[in-house]
Amino acid sequence: MAWAARLAGCKPSELLDFSASISPLGPPRSVREAVQAAFSWVVAYPDTHYDELRRAIAQHHGLTPEYVLPGNGAAELLTWAAREMSLQTRGCFSVTPGFSDYDRALGAFGIKPTNISLGNEERWHLDTWDTNFLEHIPQEIKLREFSFLLNNPHNPTGALLSRERVRSLIMAFGMVVVDEAFMDFLLPDREQSVIEWVDEFPRLVVLRSLTKFYSMPGIRLGYAIAQPATLQRWQQWRDPWAVNSLAAAAGVAAIQDVEFQQQTWRWLEHGNHQLYEGLAALPGLSPLPSVANFFLVKCEVSATDLQRQLLKQHRLYIRDCISFETLGDRYFRVAVKSEADNQRLLTALAAILPTLPRQNHSHEDSPHGR
Amino acid sequence: MAWAARLAGCKPSELLDFSASISPLGPPRSVREAVQAAFSWVVAYPDTHYDELRRAIAQHHGLTPEYVLPGNGAAELLTWAAREMSLQTRGCFSVTPGFSDYDRALGAFGIKPTNISLGNEERWHLDTWDTNFLEHIPQEIKLREFSFLLNNPHNPTGALLSRERVRSLIMAFGMVVVDEAFMDFLLPDREQSVIEWVDEFPRLVVLRSLTKFYSMPGIRLGYAIAQPATLQRWQQWRDPWAVNSLAAAAGVAAIQDVEFQQQTWRWLEHGNHQLYEGLAALPGLSPLPSVANFFLVKCEVSATDLQRQLLKQHRLYIRDCISFETLGDRYFRVAVKSEADNQRLLTALAAILPTLPRQNHSHEDSPHGR
Repeated sequence: MAWAARLAGCKPSELLDFSASISPLGPPRSVREAVQAAFSWVVAYPDTHYDELRRAIAQHHGLTPEYVLPGNGAAELLTWAAREMSLQTRGCFSVTPGFSDYDRALGAFGIKPTNISLGNEERWHLDTWDTNFLEHIPQEIKLREFSFLLNNPHNPTGALLSRERVRSLIMAFGMVVVDEAFMDFLLPDREQSVIEWVDEFPRLVVLRSLTKFYSMPGIRLGYAIAQPATLQRWQQWRDPWAVNSLAAAAGVAAIQDVEFQQQTWRWLEHGNHQLYEGLAALPGLSPLPSVANFFLVKCEVSATDLQRQLLKQHRLYIRDCISFETLGDRYFRVAVKSEADNQRLLTALAAILPTLPRQNHSHEDSPHGR
Repeated sequence: MAWAARLAGCKPSELLDFSASISPLGPPRSVREAVQAAFSWVVAYPDTHYDELRRAIAQHHGLTPEYVLPGNGAAELLTWAAREMSLQTRGCFSVTPGFSDYDRALGAFGIKPTNISLGNEERWHLDTWDTNFLEHIPQEIKLREFSFLLNNPHNPTGALLSRERVRSLIMAFGMVVVDEAFMDFLLPDREQSVIEWVDEFPRLVVLRSLTKFYSMPGIRLGYAIAQPATLQRWQQWRDPWAVNSLAAAAGVAAIQDVEFQQQTWRWLEHGNHQLYEGLAALPGLSPLPSVANFFLVKCEVSATDLQRQLLKQHRLYIRDCISFETLGDRYFRVAVKSEADNQRLLTALAAILPTLPRQNHSHEDSPHGR
């Protein structure tokens, strides 16, 4: 944020940030109140069992608390999931483009993941992109000896893998970790979480975040769902007080805030439609359909140039995709925000796009697929 | 706390807690205000470099920020220190009795520490207990191939090792980690921190806590001081946002609150004296002299019985020493609190002690030394 603010010539708080895929609605009032009340408890150590938080999360998913391990953000739990994969399997398959912290976590325990490309972007559609995964792995590989780290819905494409397709991966691989950081943005009748299967599969781990939907990434809070034996092992690896008391209180309030959840789903249904249609209508932009609160957008201009001009001229900050190694300069990612903010972005894009040179790369020239 | 409150028949908040070695003075008003102000920033991810916090800590110690790594409590950093020891050395020496989380952290990376006993309690005196360490290690051991994990001041005895004595360990061992979680309770002219030596010794790591002195263990905040190359490695092992934004803001406020620091030193000088003299005057109790905000007390009655009676009759909670494996039932630990609370404890002890049977173990029967 700091460099973006410098480029825009303003304070970070004055930027309109489309780069982080965080809901614009929160944090909920319930969270603010819970954090304020919890401050009087910071003089005590957190409960090492996090009983109240685990009960609230378990109840939300219809589980018992021993299947839940809260963490200092889903990223903290990813670290331990990576260690688990390094002990249980010989290596890990993952999907590219993907979240760069996967490589960090796996690398920390000596795993260099084998990245499976999403392939030609024409195939990046809901419910079809998954079929590529097993096709791309040589037949002689014994999948039971490997793990698979999956992001569903997938960041940055916003594509969703059906529960049944995830099941085929769980059946094939020795261990499967599903990062469902954005799954809570889907309505209950559309979501494809595999949380309900953790009892059936001892080597299935699901990671969830409480910071994107509830707009509190600064709070750091996520959880893992897996069989109790796995989670007990992780608890011995890390210190006993991994979650701050204020974060624990925020989590209890957030996951029980049904009204905020319904408000969020209503907002996203409209906002997702508004932003997709608006982006698709702009010459030179091709947004991918997304089930989540962000869009990956292919563009015929340099995304880096576009990002800089949006910052300089409009104090709007979009996410370039340079850190997604197979995407490069022809894509950017934007979060869905309020109706007015989405419109501000669309208006700014409409003004800037005609001023930038088109770069009509052929598929051969494009950086993706490498 | 929950079981203690049940035994006392009250809520946890109604217990007077002498079991945790936390200052009774905080959290400082500056911290409360900083946390409240920071809440408006939880919608953003924390700065992965924690620039402001690292600068504030570095300034406090006269260092540059690249020597500082903040963590989600000193315990989180202990985990990575243990991993570092497991990679740099063949094994680790530690001191018993000692903090049980040391065994957890080392065990997480396959190290079973070799515990050096403090020996007969007659030798547990300031500036002498250290001489035992090297004596207790067989001469044929190549110390350069091993690490040493030291707690200074030492918990639970409250003994202080002089800086020069720590230096002899640093010179002898392949790596030394000094947990200085309680060092900030000592006046600047008495403290024996080795932070100033990190530049000289590439395999010296100092761990500090910000939660005991500033009364905010629920916030989770500590830091490691070491050479930048070491800290950069740890940053690749853990996720990029290990410290919650509210904790980071609390840390900046706390470490700059000079008035609170001076108030704490004044309180402790008086409170330490009051509690030591009061405990020493009670028949059957022998407190050890302590430089820190707690006392280890040898008792001629069962410490477990004493703890239960203090809970049931007075809602006072002292720390038994069962989890310090070489201490057992003949010791308890108490924190120094306000003058009035210290007096409440002394009065309650004076009432209960005569009602409990004396157990005059000989040295041979005593659990310590095992």
